[in-house]
Amino acid sequence: MGAVATTTIAGVFLARRGLGKPVGSLTQLGTIRLGKRTEGRNPKINELVPLANLEDIEFGGWDVFPDNALEAARRARVLETEHLDAVADELKAVAPMKAAFYPEYVKRLSGTHVKEAPSKYEMVEQLRADIRRFKQERNVDRVVAVWCGSTETFLQQTPVHQTIASFEEGLRKSDPNINNTLLYVWACLKEGVPFANGAPNLGVDIPAVHELARETNTPIAGRDFKTGQTLMKTVIAPGLKARLLGLNGWYSTNILGNRDGEVLDDPANFKTKENSKLGVLDSILEPAKHPGLYDDYFHKVRIDYYPPRGDAKEGWDNIDLFGWMGYPMQIKIDFLCRDSILAAPIVLDLALFMDLAKRAGFRGIQEWLGFYFKAPMAAEGLQVEHDLFVQQSKLKNTLRWMVGEELITHLGNEYYD
Amino acid sequence: MGAVATTTIAGVFLARRGLGKPVGSLTQLGTIRLGKRTEGRNPKINELVPLANLEDIEFGGWDVFPDNALEAARRARVLETEHLDAVADELKAVAPMKAAFYPEYVKRLSGTHVKEAPSKYEMVEQLRADIRRFKQERNVDRVVAVWCGSTETFLQQTPVHQTIASFEEGLRKSDPNINNTLLYVWACLKEGVPFANGAPNLGVDIPAVHELARETNTPIAGRDFKTGQTLMKTVIAPGLKARLLGLNGWYSTNILGNRDGEVLDDPANFKTKENSKLGVLDSILEPAKHPGLYDDYFHKVRIDYYPPRGDAKEGWDNIDLFGWMGYPMQIKIDFLCRDSILAAPIVLDLALFMDLAKRAGFRGIQEWLGFYFKAPMAAEGLQVEHDLFVQQSKLKNTLRWMVGEELITHLGNEYYD
Amino acid sequence: MGAVATTTIAGVFLARRGLGKPVGSLTQLGTIRLGKRTEGRNPKINELVPLANLEDIEFGGWDVFPDNALEAARRARVLETEHLDAVADELKAVAPMKAAFYPEYVKRLSGTHVKEAPSKYEMVEQLRADIRRFKQERNVDRVVAVWCGSTETFLQQTPVHQTIASFEEGLRKSDPNINNTLLYVWACLKEGVPFANGAPNLGVDIPAVHELARETNTPIAGRDFKTGQTLMKTVIAPGLKARLLGLNGWYSTNILGNRDGEVLDDPANFKTKENSKLGVLDSILEPAKHPGLYDDYFHKVRIDYYPPRGDAKEGWDNIDLFGWMGYPMQIKIDFLCRDSILAAPIVLDLALFMDLAKRAGFRGIQEWLGFYFKAPMAAEGLQVEHDLFVQQSKLKNTLRWMVGEELITHLGNEYYD
Amino acid sequence: MGAVATTTIAGVFLARRGLGKPVGSLTQLGTIRLGKRTEGRNPKINELVPLANLEDIEFGGWDVFPDNALEAARRARVLETEHLDAVADELKAVAPMKAAFYPEYVKRLSGTHVKEAPSKYEMVEQLRADIRRFKQERNVDRVVAVWCGSTETFLQQTPVHQTIASFEEGLRKSDPNINNTLLYVWACLKEGVPFANGAPNLGVDIPAVHELARETNTPIAGRDFKTGQTLMKTVIAPGLKARLLGLNGWYSTNILGNRDGEVLDDPANFKTKENSKLGVLDSILEPAKHPGLYDDYFHKVRIDYYPPRGDAKEGWDNIDLFGWMGYPMQIKIDFLCRDSILAAPIVLDLALFMDLAKRAGFRGIQEWLGFYFKAPMAAEGLQVEHDLFVQQSKLKNTLRWMVGEELITHLGNEYYD
Repeated sequence: MGAVATTTIAGVFLARRGLGKPVGSLTQLGTIRLGKRTEGRNPKINELVPLANLEDIEFGGWDVFPDNALEAARRARVLETEHLDAVADELKAVAPMKAAFYPEYVKRLSGTHVKEAPSKYEMVEQLRADIRRFKQERNVDRVVAVWCGSTETFLQQTPVHQTIASFEEGLRKSDPNINNTLLYVWACLKEGVPFANGAPNLGVDIPAVHELARETNTPIAGRDFKTGQTLMKTVIAPGLKARLLGLNGWYSTNILGNRDGEVLDDPANFKTKENSKLGVLDSILEPAKHPGLYDDYFHKVRIDYYPPRGDAKEGWDNIDLFGWMGYPMQIKIDFLCRDSILAAPIVLDLALFMDLAKRAGFRGIQEWLGFYFKAPMAAEGLQVEHDLFVQQSKLKNTLRWMVGEELITHLGNEYYD
Repeated sequence: MGAVATTTIAGVFLARRGLGKPVGSLTQLGTIRLGKRTEGRNPKINELVPLANLEDIEFGGWDVFPDNALEAARRARVLETEHLDAVADELKAVAPMKAAFYPEYVKRLSGTHVKEAPSKYEMVEQLRADIRRFKQERNVDRVVAVWCGSTETFLQQTPVHQTIASFEEGLRKSDPNINNTLLYVWACLKEGVPFANGAPNLGVDIPAVHELARETNTPIAGRDFKTGQTLMKTVIAPGLKARLLGLNGWYSTNILGNRDGEVLDDPANFKTKENSKLGVLDSILEPAKHPGLYDDYFHKVRIDYYPPRGDAKEGWDNIDLFGWMGYPMQIKIDFLCRDSILAAPIVLDLALFMDLAKRAGFRGIQEWLGFYFKAPMAAEGLQVEHDLFVQQSKLKNTLRWMVGEELITHLGNEYYD
Repeated sequence: MGAVATTTIAGVFLARRGLGKPVGSLTQLGTIRLGKRTEGRNPKINELVPLANLEDIEFGGWDVFPDNALEAARRARVLETEHLDAVADELKAVAPMKAAFYPEYVKRLSGTHVKEAPSKYEMVEQLRADIRRFKQERNVDRVVAVWCGSTETFLQQTPVHQTIASFEEGLRKSDPNINNTLLYVWACLKEGVPFANGAPNLGVDIPAVHELARETNTPIAGRDFKTGQTLMKTVIAPGLKARLLGLNGWYSTNILGNRDGEVLDDPANFKTKENSKLGVLDSILEPAKHPGLYDDYFHKVRIDYYPPRGDAKEGWDNIDLFGWMGYPMQIKIDFLCRDSILAAPIVLDLALFMDLAKRAGFRGIQEWLGFYFKAPMAAEGLQVEHDLFVQQSKLKNTLRWMVGEELITHLGNEYYD
Repeated sequence: MGAVATTTIAGVFLARRGLGKPVGSLTQLGTIRLGKRTEGRNPKINELVPLANLEDIEFGGWDVFPDNALEAARRARVLETEHLDAVADELKAVAPMKAAFYPEYVKRLSGTHVKEAPSKYEMVEQLRADIRRFKQERNVDRVVAVWCGSTETFLQQTPVHQTIASFEEGLRKSDPNINNTLLYVWACLKEGVPFANGAPNLGVDIPAVHELARETNTPIAGRDFKTGQTLMKTVIAPGLKARLLGLNGWYSTNILGNRDGEVLDDPANFKTKENSKLGVLDSILEPAKHPGLYDDYFHKVRIDYYPPRGDAKEGWDNIDLFGWMGYPMQIKIDFLCRDSILAAPIVLDLALFMDLAKRAGFRGIQEWLGFYFKAPMAAEGLQVEHDLFVQQSKLKNTLRWMVGEELITHLGNEYYD
């Protein structure tokens, strides 16, 4: 029920009534080219594949504060008063369930609306019961989970994360290497609920979770919504690489003043985020294939808490590149963005695509949804793809493939003799 | 023999001796993935297809000034003294032939090193003789032309441009709708020399030229090298579109102080450039397919002559975008670039790829080289593609297709069960 | 009744009720140091000199549209709805008088709410009658005029502007060298009403007006409110000069989307504005005193109409400077400002200070108010001062001098032995 | 013998021969207005007061590396090869004396060219002997010291810093609260050599030093050269304050890649610098006098080591301001500067002005030279002045006062009746 979740929920309510446009959402506004350029076939994505309708969605969630979605949205100060007023009644009706929350993973937050349980195992059981109750009370057939919570402190994989057995044993012993996110992941997968992880927290990337996802035929996706600066980075870096312009350095700083900024001001939490943000460039630029161009650049990422901005983040990038004969050039990018506004359509798309994936019989890692994540996932041993445009090709060709349409290669030699 | 040409030539000389790296050149440094990600096959492009070697290239050109390449390069002040000194002898040996130059198309230039002829037809004949003489004197088998000259005043297509017959009649009558560029294009095609147009001038885009290219089995490509700001635009706009972020406005201004800037300070010449620069966004964003996102934005492009910078251009872009529920955001991009440094590798790649195309039996428009142009070309009736990443897929899949390798679609579902 | 005037009026209404703070106003919020630093005497300016109270102000004005201040303010979209709603009744009561408006001076505006008169002389008489009626109806003792209208086409001084006699003859003949602004100036001075010119239009800077101002003991001030980019320029340039950093070039571009932007899109009107904006640097940098530093720089100013922004202007400056041994450096400034928000406190201050000046027996040019103008005025033959900090010293020392306080020199040697 | 010192020395050598201009130096290029504006008296500063000539300067220094000034300058990579070559012989002749250097104050530096001594007291004695030897060997009458060394770790004042007696006792005991800078300060003052501290290190700001300066009739000044971002801050902040525009926040980040950047990457050293940089705004904006404008802003300063830039620093500032009725605006400033290029003229000016001060009989804190420092000094109990323009008035009025000229107040009412 933070800024991202309430902006998503309020936006869906507004869109249903025609009071706002779900800009940024491929499932709502995207089109897809089919066949040759000259055929002129460009249906909407939601006409090509069977997605759930906005009208049929019910929202639920957990939070460490008891505020309902209206109160939470007002506090988040993302959407304007007139927008919130228009759907106030519907928002008021979305009240959070009590959270499973061990505060040691997010030291700057202290919630009151939390469950109690003798062990993490029982905590998971309570979450599972919540899910079942939600389905019954709301009378819904299918459920999808999208994690919109805070960044947690940095955790590395340990033996407890390796197998279903070791993980369940860890739950029973309330192992400190199991963070809050993992409790929700486990509960969801046990219930066969697809899980997309919008934070950089350790969640869907451990072997035990992969095993459980396969066993329960459940799709998973993650991690960390690709919104402001990293989104730009995965746009610009492919551009430099396409033209083989060399890189001496890339300096990125962010200022933001919302609760996310406050949490990331704690170095332990920042480390989780930093790891998620730093991997992007190497993965796109492939230094090993480009000696002398991309194997010796300096990459620095800063996030600074800066209250004057609230949810309106600003990312400033300086890129030191070089061209022909090594001559230096610079690009500076200033992105005055809004965190939750960029994240909301991702939440909606992930919910609908993960639900589609489940029905299509997909399970485990959904690499084709890497398009939405800062630190996307791939099958073990496979290079992860961060390039937004490769990710887009993958996503769209996956949709074409699902319905038996020809894949697009942009060869286009048939137009010439 | 302007800044772009001499930077290219000097760079090739430096690269031959290992004194500089041809950064930005796909033919020299690019790799290409073949087969599955897991196969690890990533040869260099020049190992996949048979390209001419740098060692085998001979340079020639026409110019309205008699300076040799060394003098011209020093005046252009792009490369540093130590770089020019290292290849001074070779540069000195590259002296321009007299130019075919009617000054009414570039009012701010007045050259002295020019041919005289009773009609434009005879002017073309003189250029053809130059080409034949060059081949003989330098003992070269194949020739390619890449236009690196100034922007000319804006011209529209007229009846004289429609057929070979009408064009040759126009040459005889020295029709004012035939600019300098077209004289060179015609001379080259008549000699079977592939022609790539690096300026926005009317050149390879008229029906008469297309007819002649087919008839003489000659490849053509154009127009206007995609270097600084437009390069960034064709990187950023696909990024916005991938995520369906809406656009309210895009303001672009450029400051540059070289001869190009001086020429563009004349409104008649600027109009030619402006047309080349303005088409980019609509073509990428496809307003018709995206009502409410891209059908009502304000696009403005400025170029201002600003002597303090010399060849070091600066492009500043402001992008007013909007996201979820229409909330506004802004991106500002400041690109401190160098015109000739960005153009030089394009000149080299076009020379080598056009030569390859000719040998491969390609003729007419080379859409797969649109990657290098601000205003790329496509077969009649076909939507032109400006998206740098689509252009890159087309170029690379064309190379793969040439040698019978599998095309890349990024579907990648074979890695998952 | 444009954006500036209505923002000023609404702001004063809001401030009276404690619903908003008149930020930017020296008369309301400014303090002034008196005596030595150690004395700690820092009264508010309005405690030092006798200024009119906000409570006692009545507003009136002329406009070419009949909308009252509430309607006009809503259309201008500067202040938010909640601010306008809070003072809606008071704004509604401010209705414009019919304007004296010859449309040839502002070709992009066509007003309907205009006076008719057989000659410009009679037009002035009608304006004078308006002023007298306003004083009587509102029961006010003193009146001050601050011009907040549009930029008019560029006019140069001609013989008609030289003397009271020639000017009045010109009025009778409706001389085309007398623009709308001058009609208002003349009417005001004839009524003894101080006049401050917030636009760059020819207004208070002609000899005839100076003569009339002296004759009628009326203060005048102008021209062109110093708001966004020029304000920054008069801050930065004195900084460079203080440190004797040299200047190679200064490039300034503005994007704005309000009515002002639309009017300035007409080259004839832009020329008036450009002249006002270009003089700033030379006056501050004094090239003659600084050979080799400031006598050979390139200065370019652009204003582009860009509707997406409305009243929220953006100014982008690039400064090419050089330091020790001539080494180059750059400063880039991006000012996301709001035109009317920056102008409103200037309007208020000028009204109160001009009224003070009149009561203090000042007449003619008020150089001490040059602080507020892009193109300030000085006595004939005297160098005009654009440096914001010199202007500030002059303004504050004038206030100190008015009340017999010691002038501040910042020598401060008394604190040391 | 770091980047700043060698850039200064080489520049003076170049200027002597007319091969470079000492841009940025008031003592060399500055003029000063005398009397009324209409008098036209604007002599150069070095014509008004008797300053040492460039021709008469001898350079000496201490360094932890044995490289002479030529080697050090080449390594610093500030000045171009052709500049250094032109004065190579003179630079080669400037070899450093062994440094007094306790490495615990600059952990990232490890020098080999260092003195050894049983206590800090003897270390000071060795430095004093160096000074006397330098005077004798070079046959100079007067000596001035300007500290151009690295930033040391943060130290607070303790009892040892309070009196001459306690300090000398501390020297004997090698008190850890006495850093390297203080050793040089003490040696200089004991020899009657004026000392200007260009780093933020504890140096001339302790009571013991003040006492010694008075006792030995020696001028002192400091601290921390005001060069890039802070220079801009003390230009912009007075501009905001002049117009009473409110401040919500100011975010500053710096990237630099020279030895200074490396040293500041250590948090203990950064703290010293941060303190020096943070005080600026409050001192200029005077929150107590401006409630509601400047008493609740968020100020953040970052310095990040970023090797791609070398000595070419970049400072990026974001300023969140507000105007009339509290409406928000933003200013972003990107300063592509060069640290040593900006510092060199300061070093020269301080040397000449401090020498002037000594001859004029000034002693102790030279507040009038605060113009050159990030953290200027003032007599005890006196508010420190950071506003660049107030500092400039103070400096220039001090010069006028020295020679009996009238102080400038900018009142200027004599030009009007």
